[in-house]
Amino acid sequence: MRGNQPLHIPVRTIMTPGPVEVDPRVRQAMSHSILGQFDPAFTSIMNETMQLLREVLQTKNEWAFPIDGTSRAGIEAMLCSVIEEGDKVLIPCFGRFGYLLKEITERCGAEVTIIEKEWGQVFEPEEIIRALKKEQPKILAMVHGDTSTGRMQPLQEIGKACRELDILFIVDAVATVGGTDVKTDEWFIDGLITGTQKCLSVPSGMAPLTYNERVENILKERKSIEQGLITERSEVNVKRRIKSNYFDLSQLQDYWSPARLNHHTEATAMLYGLNEGLKLILEEGLEQRFERHRVNEQALVAGIKAMGLTLFGDEASKMPTVTCISIPAGVNGEQVRRMLLDEFGIEIASSFGPLAGKIWRIGTMGYSCQKRNVLLTLGALEAVLIASGVSVHRGEAVQAALSYYSEALKEERAVL
Amino acid sequence: MRGNQPLHIPVRTIMTPGPVEVDPRVRQAMSHSILGQFDPAFTSIMNETMQLLREVLQTKNEWAFPIDGTSRAGIEAMLCSVIEEGDKVLIPCFGRFGYLLKEITERCGAEVTIIEKEWGQVFEPEEIIRALKKEQPKILAMVHGDTSTGRMQPLQEIGKACRELDILFIVDAVATVGGTDVKTDEWFIDGLITGTQKCLSVPSGMAPLTYNERVENILKERKSIEQGLITERSEVNVKRRIKSNYFDLSQLQDYWSPARLNHHTEATAMLYGLNEGLKLILEEGLEQRFERHRVNEQALVAGIKAMGLTLFGDEASKMPTVTCISIPAGVNGEQVRRMLLDEFGIEIASSFGPLAGKIWRIGTMGYSCQKRNVLLTLGALEAVLIASGVSVHRGEAVQAALSYYSEALKEERAVL
Repeated sequence: MRGNQPLHIPVRTIMTPGPVEVDPRVRQAMSHSILGQFDPAFTSIMNETMQLLREVLQTKNEWAFPIDGTSRAGIEAMLCSVIEEGDKVLIPCFGRFGYLLKEITERCGAEVTIIEKEWGQVFEPEEIIRALKKEQPKILAMVHGDTSTGRMQPLQEIGKACRELDILFIVDAVATVGGTDVKTDEWFIDGLITGTQKCLSVPSGMAPLTYNERVENILKERKSIEQGLITERSEVNVKRRIKSNYFDLSQLQDYWSPARLNHHTEATAMLYGLNEGLKLILEEGLEQRFERHRVNEQALVAGIKAMGLTLFGDEASKMPTVTCISIPAGVNGEQVRRMLLDEFGIEIASSFGPLAGKIWRIGTMGYSCQKRNVLLTLGALEAVLIASGVSVHRGEAVQAALSYYSEALKEERAVL
Repeated sequence: MRGNQPLHIPVRTIMTPGPVEVDPRVRQAMSHSILGQFDPAFTSIMNETMQLLREVLQTKNEWAFPIDGTSRAGIEAMLCSVIEEGDKVLIPCFGRFGYLLKEITERCGAEVTIIEKEWGQVFEPEEIIRALKKEQPKILAMVHGDTSTGRMQPLQEIGKACRELDILFIVDAVATVGGTDVKTDEWFIDGLITGTQKCLSVPSGMAPLTYNERVENILKERKSIEQGLITERSEVNVKRRIKSNYFDLSQLQDYWSPARLNHHTEATAMLYGLNEGLKLILEEGLEQRFERHRVNEQALVAGIKAMGLTLFGDEASKMPTVTCISIPAGVNGEQVRRMLLDEFGIEIASSFGPLAGKIWRIGTMGYSCQKRNVLLTLGALEAVLIASGVSVHRGEAVQAALSYYSEALKEERAVL
């Protein structure tokens, strides 16, 4: 019987763009005992989590709650709840996750138009606004930070244009919320989705989202009530009904409202973890937290450059939570990653599609985003590159990062 | 700053049909640190979990893995991956969750025919087989144990007929797997879904499923690869493409296969918990575990009857994991439940639709299914009923259950 072998979880330093390490307080929260989903002790945790989410997502929206699923579950819930057959959707793609939006949106039955940037660049807001005026879509869906290329798209001007043109603005902010500024309301974002396993630093498995009245008005028109729940049969506008039960935001909203209309059984332990993770963020303070992410990223970048490696992609649009490095010619990127993991217990990431085998990606997200981790990663990466026969400036990387940190400390910037 | 208030989780005895209590070993497993999703230490946990699932689901199927979402996420994944626009689906309904299958199936674009039983009864296999021959659907979808009425539908004859008629047999076994016998292969089930928060006794948030080659053949024909993952654009048969990305079993299968083609980021902590929960089941032994569920249920039933209360529903088809009690005339069922929770920290359930306010439901599932819990619940329920002015046979319930347990122990039956 295999039952006798306990779980083996080796110690890791996780420097990928997710999943990242989790504060011990979050892991401990998840190990609490179960509460029933309609137990007032549990519904009060649900309500508190909504309020914590509003603060972290910088919104006054009434609706802010998690989808029980990984990040793309939240994206699909948002998109399939607002898209009806034949709706026009415009998607600017500047990396893998723009194409994921395209794929999800197409499957929802939308007529999708994409505009594309070479991986490593982002759009000028003007380019997108021109396309909005030309295509006149119902929805503009786009990624805020695309981890596949490490680029971040400025959103405020685009949001403003959407509002003026009465276009719904849906944003995938999975890789940025909790690590860098994301101003849902100020940037005119109508629906925003994030994930737990990146800068929120909670295990993968929930996708918090928020939406405003512009989205809610669509939900109201498409709403139906589950038949087994009520005595009378409800009128269902079958043609306009949301194509998924699990992702039906109108039903989920009823479940998260004081009505508590039964839908799924809320994921107890994950909600404990999310609740604790959000509290940790607000205890640290959003501004402090973003500053900590910037300082650690810049120390990492200083080290990478000092080693003689080249950063990939447009510098102005670099995500502060992901650093992409061009793999030097002749180096097998996967062998380097494997040695980092096997010998040092440190994980960094590769990339996808046109960048597969061409770049490494180092994440500095959430609880993983610490001075200690940055220094250990730089030292280990240098050692592995030397062992792989790559010519680097020996001994410089860690020193450059240490110097950066002491400057930052002098300026009283947040480090951790 | 709200951050200073820690999570408040009061002690509860959870005697509902889910979510139920969780073995401390599972809670501890979930508090382990994070591993990256492609870390060999993690993928080996994924592989082991598949093997454990095969054993618990009593199948030789190659594919057995969890969907990252609650039970109905698994149901929707299975149904939307096999149903194409206009497919005929037959759904026999004998409670709330049959109507849930109908709702999900309709949203997948199927032409749905339902046959219905009054809540509290199940079907004669012959009735369903007749309907199969008349309707000739592509799929028969049905619930094994419907917790809303506490009834369980025998499946083997129906499964055999489906195989002979070349109809796909999809079963929602959310409320039965791990608590009573569910023989996926022997009962000719093509696709089976369960959930974690009931008899598997793991927190809500995952939906393990399994399917055979008959399902896999459909997936093969509908498969597409995510565009951002590959360099070349893949041919997509848009018309037949599965309508959901998150629930696309063909892509999920690639992710769980040695190819490990990236899809979502597997829910790390939930998988640790599922892995440990499955090990606990196999350590106990399936037969022993089912016996424990029967003994505790029968002790509970003996107590309920001795108190003078009436069980609801057809006795022959009673689920061994849920006991439904008719609320005595004039009693406010919600007040009784509330007093049980507030004064004793014990939770029992109400029901839905036509049974709302008419029955209480007591679950005996997984880790909650213990002698101690049964005895405490009987004693507390009696006290609350007396306090509510209900006439019961005082002092009899707990004694009846104790007698049942000592008989069971003499016969060397499993108790816990």
